[in-house]
Amino acid sequence: MWLMNDFPFKRVAEHYGFEPTQAWLDHVRLSSVRIARGCSGSVVSPNGLVMTNHHCAQSCIQQLSTAKKDLVARGFIAGTQVDEERCPDVEIDQLTRISDVTSRIALATQGTTGAELNRTLKAEESRIEKECATTDEVRCDVVSLYRGGRFHLYEYRRFQDVRLAFAPEISIAFFGGDPDNFNFPRYDLDVSFLRIWKDNRPASTPDYLRWSAIGAKEGDLTFVSGHPGSTSRNLTIAELAYLRDVGLPERIFRLAEARGELLQFAERGAEERRVARGTLFGVENSLKALKGRLQALVSPEMWESKVLAEKELKERAATMPEFAKNWAGAWDAIERAERRKQEVHRLYLQMETGWGFWSELFGYARTLVRAADELTKPNAERLREYTDARLPAMKQRIESTAPVYKDLEAMTLAMSLRQMREALGPDDPVLRAVLGPQTPAELAHQVVTTSRLGEPKVRKALFDGGKAAIDASEDSMILLAKRVDKDARTVRKTFEDEVEAAEEENGEKIARARFAVYGTTVYPDATSTLRLSYGQVKGWDEAGHHVNPVTTFGGAFARATGRDPFKLPKRWVDAKPDLDLSTPFNMATTNDIVGGNSGSPVINKDAEIVGLVFDGNIHSLGGDYAYDGGNNRAVAVESTALVDALGKIYSALRIHDEIVTGKPSASW
Amino acid sequence: MWLMNDFPFKRVAEHYGFEPTQAWLDHVRLSSVRIARGCSGSVVSPNGLVMTNHHCAQSCIQQLSTAKKDLVARGFIAGTQVDEERCPDVEIDQLTRISDVTSRIALATQGTTGAELNRTLKAEESRIEKECATTDEVRCDVVSLYRGGRFHLYEYRRFQDVRLAFAPEISIAFFGGDPDNFNFPRYDLDVSFLRIWKDNRPASTPDYLRWSAIGAKEGDLTFVSGHPGSTSRNLTIAELAYLRDVGLPERIFRLAEARGELLQFAERGAEERRVARGTLFGVENSLKALKGRLQALVSPEMWESKVLAEKELKERAATMPEFAKNWAGAWDAIERAERRKQEVHRLYLQMETGWGFWSELFGYARTLVRAADELTKPNAERLREYTDARLPAMKQRIESTAPVYKDLEAMTLAMSLRQMREALGPDDPVLRAVLGPQTPAELAHQVVTTSRLGEPKVRKALFDGGKAAIDASEDSMILLAKRVDKDARTVRKTFEDEVEAAEEENGEKIARARFAVYGTTVYPDATSTLRLSYGQVKGWDEAGHHVNPVTTFGGAFARATGRDPFKLPKRWVDAKPDLDLSTPFNMATTNDIVGGNSGSPVINKDAEIVGLVFDGNIHSLGGDYAYDGGNNRAVAVESTALVDALGKIYSALRIHDEIVTGKPSASW
Repeated sequence: MWLMNDFPFKRVAEHYGFEPTQAWLDHVRLSSVRIARGCSGSVVSPNGLVMTNHHCAQSCIQQLSTAKKDLVARGFIAGTQVDEERCPDVEIDQLTRISDVTSRIALATQGTTGAELNRTLKAEESRIEKECATTDEVRCDVVSLYRGGRFHLYEYRRFQDVRLAFAPEISIAFFGGDPDNFNFPRYDLDVSFLRIWKDNRPASTPDYLRWSAIGAKEGDLTFVSGHPGSTSRNLTIAELAYLRDVGLPERIFRLAEARGELLQFAERGAEERRVARGTLFGVENSLKALKGRLQALVSPEMWESKVLAEKELKERAATMPEFAKNWAGAWDAIERAERRKQEVHRLYLQMETGWGFWSELFGYARTLVRAADELTKPNAERLREYTDARLPAMKQRIESTAPVYKDLEAMTLAMSLRQMREALGPDDPVLRAVLGPQTPAELAHQVVTTSRLGEPKVRKALFDGGKAAIDASEDSMILLAKRVDKDARTVRKTFEDEVEAAEEENGEKIARARFAVYGTTVYPDATSTLRLSYGQVKGWDEAGHHVNPVTTFGGAFARATGRDPFKLPKRWVDAKPDLDLSTPFNMATTNDIVGGNSGSPVINKDAEIVGLVFDGNIHSLGGDYAYDGGNNRAVAVESTALVDALGKIYSALRIHDEIVTGKPSASW
Repeated sequence: MWLMNDFPFKRVAEHYGFEPTQAWLDHVRLSSVRIARGCSGSVVSPNGLVMTNHHCAQSCIQQLSTAKKDLVARGFIAGTQVDEERCPDVEIDQLTRISDVTSRIALATQGTTGAELNRTLKAEESRIEKECATTDEVRCDVVSLYRGGRFHLYEYRRFQDVRLAFAPEISIAFFGGDPDNFNFPRYDLDVSFLRIWKDNRPASTPDYLRWSAIGAKEGDLTFVSGHPGSTSRNLTIAELAYLRDVGLPERIFRLAEARGELLQFAERGAEERRVARGTLFGVENSLKALKGRLQALVSPEMWESKVLAEKELKERAATMPEFAKNWAGAWDAIERAERRKQEVHRLYLQMETGWGFWSELFGYARTLVRAADELTKPNAERLREYTDARLPAMKQRIESTAPVYKDLEAMTLAMSLRQMREALGPDDPVLRAVLGPQTPAELAHQVVTTSRLGEPKVRKALFDGGKAAIDASEDSMILLAKRVDKDARTVRKTFEDEVEAAEEENGEKIARARFAVYGTTVYPDATSTLRLSYGQVKGWDEAGHHVNPVTTFGGAFARATGRDPFKLPKRWVDAKPDLDLSTPFNMATTNDIVGGNSGSPVINKDAEIVGLVFDGNIHSLGGDYAYDGGNNRAVAVESTALVDALGKIYSALRIHDEIVTGKPSASW
């Protein structure tokens, strides 16, 4: 997960006999995109065509679906340009520049500590971002790398008119379903094609990745360019212990219960099943990932290696002159912060981060209520998510035409309010202020059924009306968001001042110690920003047998049982005679990826597409804490399978020809 | 939790100025009963009347209910003796004798180690029990105390004709529901009265506890006589780490998901709600208890105290001559066993302990299939639960008339099979043998809907028919149980030989070291056997304020919101004018109790009933690992509230008079 502006050219050359140039790197960077809210993608034609995973576009596909037109189930092929359907709230960002702002941040925060340091830091970040984002078409994020050891400014070109061009049926996009998720061998066509539009026509995208004519095979050098979300490799033992003992288990408890409710909700009928599908996928995917992470973390080998690494870092740092004055106390300070976190995390999670209010409508209400307050303040004093640089994304969301399903909303909100009551206890004054005299189910039902925030025009009017409109609103969800806001802001401040600030300040000290000991021979933890990973197509040994790194179309037919989630779409069954069953389908590579890398292109040394990352194997889940090249594998759709599926199974020749030739097809 | 045959008379005398006599202790022992499958109770009249909790009798009350006659919701009052309804499968045991068999066990196991030691030990236990249980009316259990430091033989008088005499509405028995569970202040009438019958008439029970005329007040000395289920206070750090990292989280994950499914299942309709209620209660109760235990275990104070205690024990033991030869390696050996447990626990839990087959019908099927095999073997060679001493309880269960709800069964079995698929992975050969080509839901639906094991006569015929009947049976659930039996037995053997054996053998070594260092000044971990605890009615300080140890009837009315679970029964609302609202209702005492103590009598120094244990406060959940007298409290219904409720609210004068006077009432 190397930084695009700090890439180990020589090291790659030594290992693989190929040294990328800066121009190569720039081309790959400009051909890579972030799909806002957590995925990656690549530009694959000069006309704005973007390839990503099906599961990255699934919320758009779901939002464009109705009970009678279920695009998730049946797939979607835009026969012509005008058939491409606009996604209600997808944003795509292209990274145009990275600059180092470490010294500017250092200057601004000089002489501050603790909560003041944390506040000053955020204010300076907001200032830098505002100066950078001169128009709505520019997105700017200050990114803390190496836990505050470096600060870089990432500048993006922002695209908000994104349209769906192609998606297969979910039964092949997610063949094997939750049971096969994070497993390998796999047989998934987890792809979708979106297109960036600009001024009501396909955007011009001169930087794009060409298609490899031959695809990938075992042993090939592979690069993955994408946006790994977050890793926890540089946490201290105290922070890891918090995750092991509290953080991960409590997240899993919550999601496990939600999964149970969603599964039974889906049993009510076909429409409930359709409506709950996206939420259920998200819950199951997170559950499996978090369980895998916990399992990795508690393995004696992992834990001991972490304890040893911290011991070594401390011992080596202790030989340096700065240690006693600057670094020595950092680990204990973080340990104290973790104890404080154990005390305040529940209230914080429930009231501020959304655990207690699992509802799209509540999310809208909170955004509107807070925007009304925050936007009256100077930019640098606002909560970070309400700064000017963040407004374009917020506005897109507020005006989104995505449907809201009230039955599902009432269920998830009742559940989350009940969980809040459990977390805080029925007599907690904050909880009492949330519920009033009502039960969780009563309150949820009341606010969901009466709120009008599901209507984009109602939301827009409240947003444009500012504080006066919010003050005057009697929408039930707005009233709830107003009622809880003071308590939520209070606990956020407590958490930021007493936990986060200490983690930031001391994390940065440890980062400096780490630089002093190890330099930057290690890349920083993932931060949802563009990284380039190198690796190769390679199997691994599992419980005494070798796992082959490449599967075939034939394997998919062999694995199919005709029963969900191992049921192939009719198009596949029908096309079987036309397919070469030995065609590579999915593959495993040693690239170091994590969640957020979904949709990343796999490219060869000529920067040609040879695959599409969509998952990792089960061992990749331990990658949150450490990368183990012995068995950690990225899982991708091989490129030949992608073009063959488009051409032979879906007859989606418009897209097929566009990616293969780089030109629009005849039917363009 | 002192042993009845090793009670610290002097220590009580020193602390409280009262020294119980052996006769006092014998009387209390004979007046205390175990309600098989995990509760306690007390004999409260010479005619076999037994007091326990509502939640201890709830499965009986539920089994006697139908859609039209919901005794759980409306309560039950047997107006006359013949109105008392027989519980389908309740067994009550009265402890008649305890004898020490440590030296006999030592002789039998001499010279054996590891798996052989474990097998020899079990065989000898089976032999001792068989010799002791000369008739079906005698139940004998060999109990390992101090992790094998001592072995005692517990001999009980067994009663299987148990009838329901009185139960209040669940809305007051469990007022506050899951939100108030394990909390205090409380306002619950968690009581039921059962009666032991013998030869079709109420049993004669000369040892019974009289009712206190004045009840309990703050500061009073209180004894609790009951059957605490299990505690983990003498586990090693390696064992506790397994619980913290794997054991507790995985149990919670499973139950959290089950809770979600059950809650939504109950939303399908009134009958589904009624049918799922008992299961849901059990799941929620376990969930809250396990979460509380995990929270206690991961608190830095608890963990550090455990680490220190182990260090001290090792250091002090190391000064003794036996250490190097006999004890030194025990801790590391257990640590190795815990690592092995991490590897095999999933398959073991899923296939052998019932995690993968959550179904009453499957439980019957497994019992029948295994009994057919096991009963052909000599007693000492059988699986422990199929030895002759265990047969009477098994037969009662097989012939039980308790209803089986197929919709609920299909749901829980589908869920547990799905969880098994997740735990083992879809390609695991054992999992494949379980599911065959079917999905979890398909298999569950098929076996549940077609099996006839819900009919007692079908079960009895299969049991009486022995191996021939089982071999010939084509009942779908019997077929499933047969199909999985070999794999289940295999992993049980692996687990017992490679994990349990090492824990047993080395736990015993550590127990010896602990005796050598500390003597028996500490009572052994709970083992579901009768223990006597002393303490007093006492509040505690919580987050800066004092919690009063006694609540009142008035408090219940003040807490009632009219909404479930804070809705009082109509009888209570109607009776309010007749009640003295200052009457004590619930109380907190310092007695050291855990799950299994539910239904235990609280008695004064005259062995008179002053209360009925039904819960602990939230701090009591940490009691699994250590008892903290500062805030760990037992929670009980005060005795005045019990008689007032019987008399003034329920007009249950037959029971009321019987317990107050010790004689049958006029309506007897």
